[in-house]
Amino acid sequence: MKISARNVLKGTVVSIDKGATTAHVKIEISPGQIVTASITNESVDSLKLVTGGPAYAVIKSSDVMVAVD
Amino acid sequence: MKISARNVLKGTVVSIDKGATTAHVKIEISPGQIVTASITNESVDSLKLVTGGPAYAVIKSSDVMVAVD
Amino acid sequence: MKISARNVLKGTVVSIDKGATTAHVKIEISPGQIVTASITNESVDSLKLVTGGPAYAVIKSSDVMVAVD
Amino acid sequence: MKISARNVLKGTVVSIDKGATTAHVKIEISPGQIVTASITNESVDSLKLVTGGPAYAVIKSSDVMVAVD
Amino acid sequence: MKISARNVLKGTVVSIDKGATTAHVKIEISPGQIVTASITNESVDSLKLVTGGPAYAVIKSSDVMVAVD
Amino acid sequence: MKISARNVLKGTVVSIDKGATTAHVKIEISPGQIVTASITNESVDSLKLVTGGPAYAVIKSSDVMVAVD
Repeated sequence: MKISARNVLKGTVVSIDKGATTAHVKIEISPGQIVTASITNESVDSLKLVTGGPAYAVIKSSDVMVAVD
Repeated sequence: MKISARNVLKGTVVSIDKGATTAHVKIEISPGQIVTASITNESVDSLKLVTGGPAYAVIKSSDVMVAVD
Repeated sequence: MKISARNVLKGTVVSIDKGATTAHVKIEISPGQIVTASITNESVDSLKLVTGGPAYAVIKSSDVMVAVD
Repeated sequence: MKISARNVLKGTVVSIDKGATTAHVKIEISPGQIVTASITNESVDSLKLVTGGPAYAVIKSSDVMVAVD
Repeated sequence: MKISARNVLKGTVVSIDKGATTAHVKIEISPGQIVTASITNESVDSLKLVTGGPAYAVIKSSDVMVAVD
Repeated sequence: MKISARNVLKGTVVSIDKGATTAHVKIEISPGQIVTASITNESVDSLKLVTGGPAYAVIKSSDVMVAVD
């Protein structure tokens, strides 16, 4: 499947923290650069995500903000 | 200002494409890794964004999806 | 690619309206039920979307609201 | 109330899964086509949602992505 | 229609700026406090929005971030 | 840090409700006008949010809908 989301960042799962219904998954997309995703527990299971495994962080452009110092 | 968004990725603006009301800003967050942001033209002006300048891509965790091959 | 987004609705592209930077794509997911997506023109080109062609509307659960009469 | 969100899909609530603060509500919008919404427990109570009851899945166009095989 | 979005802020439309496909609508929700919405031109027409008219800014809780100085 | 999000509403934290992984934070942005944010517990700790303390509700324009009666 090819998706319209412009941002597909390849990385490695470094942690998975499941809550009651929502999980936080951290993906290291380059050395020291971590992206946190908040997804359903259901998705964690369905994608068979495991710490140390490969994964992509996928983000729609309209959800990216820009900031400057 | 410190923000709750878990993802604040430092980089360099590599292109700014202004449309009628909406602009697409590309930020290189590590060599070859580009994040595209879709923001208002008004924000581009207000932040004084310029190609080659420093900027952060800021993303709320609930807007990050995870994918696997 | 398999994605964490819980909502992947199969349908047919019924219209593509490109603006200056942002396009509106309408996908019929069941007879008479249309979903509108607002995506970048760049994505329309990259996915080679055409009216009448097959496509999925993909939506993260945290972006779905619920309403009642 | 009439809302700007372009996507208002009528259906029936097929399940409600409340977590600690966040609930997952599944709405069948056509036979076999389920949309999952991740909303606050507070909203589930406020809307008096019940399994088997009618409900709309409401989605802003800028939150809809498009994918192709 | 009653919606799950926790944030429904009543105000007055102070400006409407239509682009090619996307419009920016500014709503004053209390004296001097303006909220900007980026919606489709189609929605502006469908809701018959006019400068000076009443309107609500509607925001899902998962789209609200928190910041401190 | 200066951010592209057009909506930065100053207020006071009136409640913090931590769940398993996700917290709901209510900010009063003008007398009687409350904005609810759904953020990670991690962010609540990182920003040292406390009831009664000052905070901003930050919202990207593309996440604001408009409604009329």
